[in-house]
Amino acid sequence: MSKRLKLTIAYDGTPFRGWQSQRTADSVQDVIEKALAKICKNPVRLHGSGRTDAGVHALGQIAHADVDRPLEILEWRRALNNWLPQEIRILNAQFVPETFHARFSAMGKEYRYEIYNGEVLPPHLFRTVWHNRWPFDADLLRKAMHAFIGTHDFAAFSAKRAVPVDDTHRTIEHIRVVIKGPLIRLTFIGDGFLYKMVRMLTAAAMQVACGKETFRGMSQRLSHPESAVNPPVAPAKGLTLVRVLY
Amino acid sequence: MSKRLKLTIAYDGTPFRGWQSQRTADSVQDVIEKALAKICKNPVRLHGSGRTDAGVHALGQIAHADVDRPLEILEWRRALNNWLPQEIRILNAQFVPETFHARFSAMGKEYRYEIYNGEVLPPHLFRTVWHNRWPFDADLLRKAMHAFIGTHDFAAFSAKRAVPVDDTHRTIEHIRVVIKGPLIRLTFIGDGFLYKMVRMLTAAAMQVACGKETFRGMSQRLSHPESAVNPPVAPAKGLTLVRVLY
Repeated sequence: MSKRLKLTIAYDGTPFRGWQSQRTADSVQDVIEKALAKICKNPVRLHGSGRTDAGVHALGQIAHADVDRPLEILEWRRALNNWLPQEIRILNAQFVPETFHARFSAMGKEYRYEIYNGEVLPPHLFRTVWHNRWPFDADLLRKAMHAFIGTHDFAAFSAKRAVPVDDTHRTIEHIRVVIKGPLIRLTFIGDGFLYKMVRMLTAAAMQVACGKETFRGMSQRLSHPESAVNPPVAPAKGLTLVRVLY
Repeated sequence: MSKRLKLTIAYDGTPFRGWQSQRTADSVQDVIEKALAKICKNPVRLHGSGRTDAGVHALGQIAHADVDRPLEILEWRRALNNWLPQEIRILNAQFVPETFHARFSAMGKEYRYEIYNGEVLPPHLFRTVWHNRWPFDADLLRKAMHAFIGTHDFAAFSAKRAVPVDDTHRTIEHIRVVIKGPLIRLTFIGDGFLYKMVRMLTAAAMQVACGKETFRGMSQRLSHPESAVNPPVAPAKGLTLVRVLY
């Protein structure tokens, strides 16, 4: 009898080709599936709550897998961390009913994006922040970020995928802007995010804050999603999936 | 006419063979000397405030070099950071009188040592902390750490060097223990530190805190430096040179 295992996963995305399984087998999913296979002595399929791009990090990615090795729940975490590289850590493992699905049961997500606005980027930060030295206006940044709250058609703030999504409306429930010296931390909580959407919203808000685009111009892109532009994308390495909401 | 350049340097020690120049040319000093040579088009010798071992980090290492390229002071920082890998950053560059010597003018140093005492080590911390899961007593840790304050012969808490030092007395002026959840941060400020001394003091204090050695036993090693033992050494990666005092 197999059991459904729910994993809470943190990773430093730097050395991996994103979450999603790759032919080159160097994605986060590939590496965890390899560890599961070592323990189960059989191939095991892992289902994530969603993809993260190459270079994007996670503090609380969620995934599930059906496993039939009769290990105690605490042994699962230990065994997996034993096989995994230090850049990937299983923070928590628990058994859940088969009605739970990491992707389809997800109600929302929290992402954060970090920017370092100082002259010289400290060596312990270069993997996890966007180094943007352009002088910015904190009030304009807050104003731009708060314009994202609510339900919008975010088509103009998302990248095309091979298989297009039917509906590009999403709801952002919560936005937080914290500025501590040269460090800017942007938090986005919403019911879902389109491909590259958080990085495009971040880039758009920073463009307004740095005086490269008007607040009005950005707002128009939000209210006229059909306007075909090629919006800037903030670098992947500044982005972290903080948690998945169920 | 050459000018003396004083550099404040931060580095992630993970990819380097310590501070001190190596035949393999992969030390922090080697890499910065290479950048200086690119800019000056001549070999330049860099003098650090002192060595750090392989894997040890710095937030404020100090070094000086005599340079004869007529660059503005702000250009020095920019040019050096341009040539350096992201793991090494020049935080500040300034011209100083020739009486200043990074090593001989130093009056003291501040080091910090970080320990992660939780079950699972978060992926963004594995380069900079010692993962020590053993249950510890916070009061015993503070008691052990505070025993180091003052002037002692630290011979029993230092590793032998090829060329032995004449005097193994050192003064620790300040000790700080900060515990935030699973993270322990130990701060040491003193007039100087012997080879591997901070890592040996950290290991000794943690042994007392974890009940592996008595406080009395540790104190005796401090008051009887001739007692020949092979003391444990905390891992290099948890150690950071915070600043050099002049």
